[in-house]
Amino acid sequence: MWDRLLTDCNIATMDPAVGAPFGAIEDGAIAIQDGRILRVGRRVELAGNRAKTVEPLGGAWVTPGLIDCHTHLVFGGNRAGEYEQRLQGATYEEIAKAGGGIVSSVKATREASLDDLVETARRRLHALMRGGATTVEIKSGYGLDTETELKMLRAAKRLGETESVRIVPTLLALHALPPDYKERRDAFVRLATEEMIPQVAGLAQAVDAYCEGIGFTQAEVRALFEAATRHGLRVKLHAEQLSNMGGAALAADYKALSADHLEHADEAGIVAMAKAGMVAVLLPGAFYALKETKKPPVDLLRKHKVPMAVATDCNPGTSPVLSPTLMLNMACTLFGLTPEEALAGMTREAARALALQDEVGTLSAGKAADLCVWRVSRPAELCYWIGLPGPERRIVAGRDA
Amino acid sequence: MWDRLLTDCNIATMDPAVGAPFGAIEDGAIAIQDGRILRVGRRVELAGNRAKTVEPLGGAWVTPGLIDCHTHLVFGGNRAGEYEQRLQGATYEEIAKAGGGIVSSVKATREASLDDLVETARRRLHALMRGGATTVEIKSGYGLDTETELKMLRAAKRLGETESVRIVPTLLALHALPPDYKERRDAFVRLATEEMIPQVAGLAQAVDAYCEGIGFTQAEVRALFEAATRHGLRVKLHAEQLSNMGGAALAADYKALSADHLEHADEAGIVAMAKAGMVAVLLPGAFYALKETKKPPVDLLRKHKVPMAVATDCNPGTSPVLSPTLMLNMACTLFGLTPEEALAGMTREAARALALQDEVGTLSAGKAADLCVWRVSRPAELCYWIGLPGPERRIVAGRDA
Ligand SMILES: [Zn+2]
Ligand SMILES: [Zn+2]
Repeated sequence: MWDRLLTDCNIATMDPAVGAPFGAIEDGAIAIQDGRILRVGRRVELAGNRAKTVEPLGGAWVTPGLIDCHTHLVFGGNRAGEYEQRLQGATYEEIAKAGGGIVSSVKATREASLDDLVETARRRLHALMRGGATTVEIKSGYGLDTETELKMLRAAKRLGETESVRIVPTLLALHALPPDYKERRDAFVRLATEEMIPQVAGLAQAVDAYCEGIGFTQAEVRALFEAATRHGLRVKLHAEQLSNMGGAALAADYKALSADHLEHADEAGIVAMAKAGMVAVLLPGAFYALKETKKPPVDLLRKHKVPMAVATDCNPGTSPVLSPTLMLNMACTLFGLTPEEALAGMTREAARALALQDEVGTLSAGKAADLCVWRVSRPAELCYWIGLPGPERRIVAGRDA
Repeated sequence: MWDRLLTDCNIATMDPAVGAPFGAIEDGAIAIQDGRILRVGRRVELAGNRAKTVEPLGGAWVTPGLIDCHTHLVFGGNRAGEYEQRLQGATYEEIAKAGGGIVSSVKATREASLDDLVETARRRLHALMRGGATTVEIKSGYGLDTETELKMLRAAKRLGETESVRIVPTLLALHALPPDYKERRDAFVRLATEEMIPQVAGLAQAVDAYCEGIGFTQAEVRALFEAATRHGLRVKLHAEQLSNMGGAALAADYKALSADHLEHADEAGIVAMAKAGMVAVLLPGAFYALKETKKPPVDLLRKHKVPMAVATDCNPGTSPVLSPTLMLNMACTLFGLTPEEALAGMTREAARALALQDEVGTLSAGKAADLCVWRVSRPAELCYWIGLPGPERRIVAGRDA
């Protein structure tokens, strides 16, 4: 006897094997056992079996739970004051001189206790969960010292232990150069490679960096990725956001899980990503907040069949985004993704970007029963509405969450 | 003895008389009696009085309830399918030929029963309410015949009677020309002036039109406004959205409540609006969804002291926006309003755009106790976050809603 049978629903499985747009099964049903999907199919195919609870969903659409595969959710303070000052006419320089910018987030994160970090991030996490997220990646990167980076990763871990959501922590080891390392960049890279990486085993699943003119060079990122690889950690990279630094191809050399942002990526970089089996993570919230005009090369990504994921990039400076569904809309409206691509980008392809494609991301037999129930008439509605609040129901590992 | 005392809170009264940014009173308290605000002040000033319930808010910020002063919330169907087709490469012409565009909304609205219209709009209204709205204007305009326009206004009215929100219905009499009136525009204007307007007494508080190359001419709008004025109805106008048609100045001739959109407004139009005491209603959701590049002339509006309101423009075609807080962010991010201007735009100035400035829009003694409680550290956070879910609590006419 099954634990649960969800029935009288339409299912956007997002499983390509189903062979319809959105992997759609209309008038379908989902059998759940021990937190996993046992069967998915047409209602008539699953009829005749018994379940402890049978829940007719009145024709709602069911999708995989949303996966936010790129966030900086844990940080101290926020930068609303700075946002306000900019709108009142202050320049970036004036704000930086007054201690603003990423430096202020680093300061607040260092000063915050582990408990503070957990509780302030929890409110943001709740917003993402209300919006349909069932898996959320969280990067460190506002510590810029080993102690604080570890504190951030512990905060992420604790959130995963206390909330109905899967948390995937990432060590963002090279995010920004601390001011006191200005004259000795090498020493900071050594701190990351020799001190941070050896200590994050069991705390982080991957190592990330920011390859940019205002971030770190190719050589610095390579040193980091060598160390990560030696320690058995996968890598991923913030690449080609503001300029083309060759980060996408560099990441491909290390079989990175993903390269993220990619507004300025060129075809050579995308070909390299395709060969390495990488995912392109598109971040329309940052594009919107920074009022960028150069879009990521979606046509080239399609041409070379690089899977596209979509994420909030939730962070206090360049993308204070709290709504996964808004990212579905922005991926379509700003970047021209189709609704099917956008939804795949926050389910199937986001799972791949986190190396979780065997566990979540599609509604397929054997995967975890992470799903959302939406009162919409077609999956495209999830992308069409601007500021859609979230699903009617969210189920994580087979349980209402 | 007072009904309720909200205390231990910071209050963004939005009342200019308070003399601080956001009309802020820190460490304040609000006394509520019979659904109205009896007193607002510093906590110590209100201490020593007794209330049936005393509610300490733990330092949260309280704002006036949000007012969404421009929506087309009632309609049949939606246009998610059309949105999807466009992203799959279909042209506007192909979609129009296949029965898409506003024609499809008109068809679905005519076919829908009153109950259908109420129930589908109710779900959207709930989203706006969750986002903090306590007053929502709703326009008709997808009927294009008297019977359906009245049906839409009745749907709006019924929503106001059954939900904890103030609803302000508007007759949008000249929205689009029905295809069967193509060769006899005059007859449609006569239908609006001679049949619709006389029948909306008690159902609509104002009359609206769409003055645009693809909408209605100055002369047609004037004919409508003459009739509205004769029937004692205030007017407002969709003006200068896609081109400069002189709508702002025209509206000023009739002492309109507001001119809305205004991307292409010129200084003469804005001066006329200032003289007529009108409000400029800015609609960043439509600007975003249509990927417009010409922003409304915010500096000119400031120069001539025209109050700026901000609204969702929730409609199925050009602005399927369900989040008031997202409009606060877009008003700042896309149009350059300051957070204080944006919040005033969805409170004090939105009230003025609906001629409700004596009733709602600021937290001042004598006004209705419509308010939101937000777990933020400063009012600017309401604009800073992108996709903020909504307030922790919403109070309408003194009652938790
Ligand atoms: Zn990032
Ligand atoms: Zn409108």
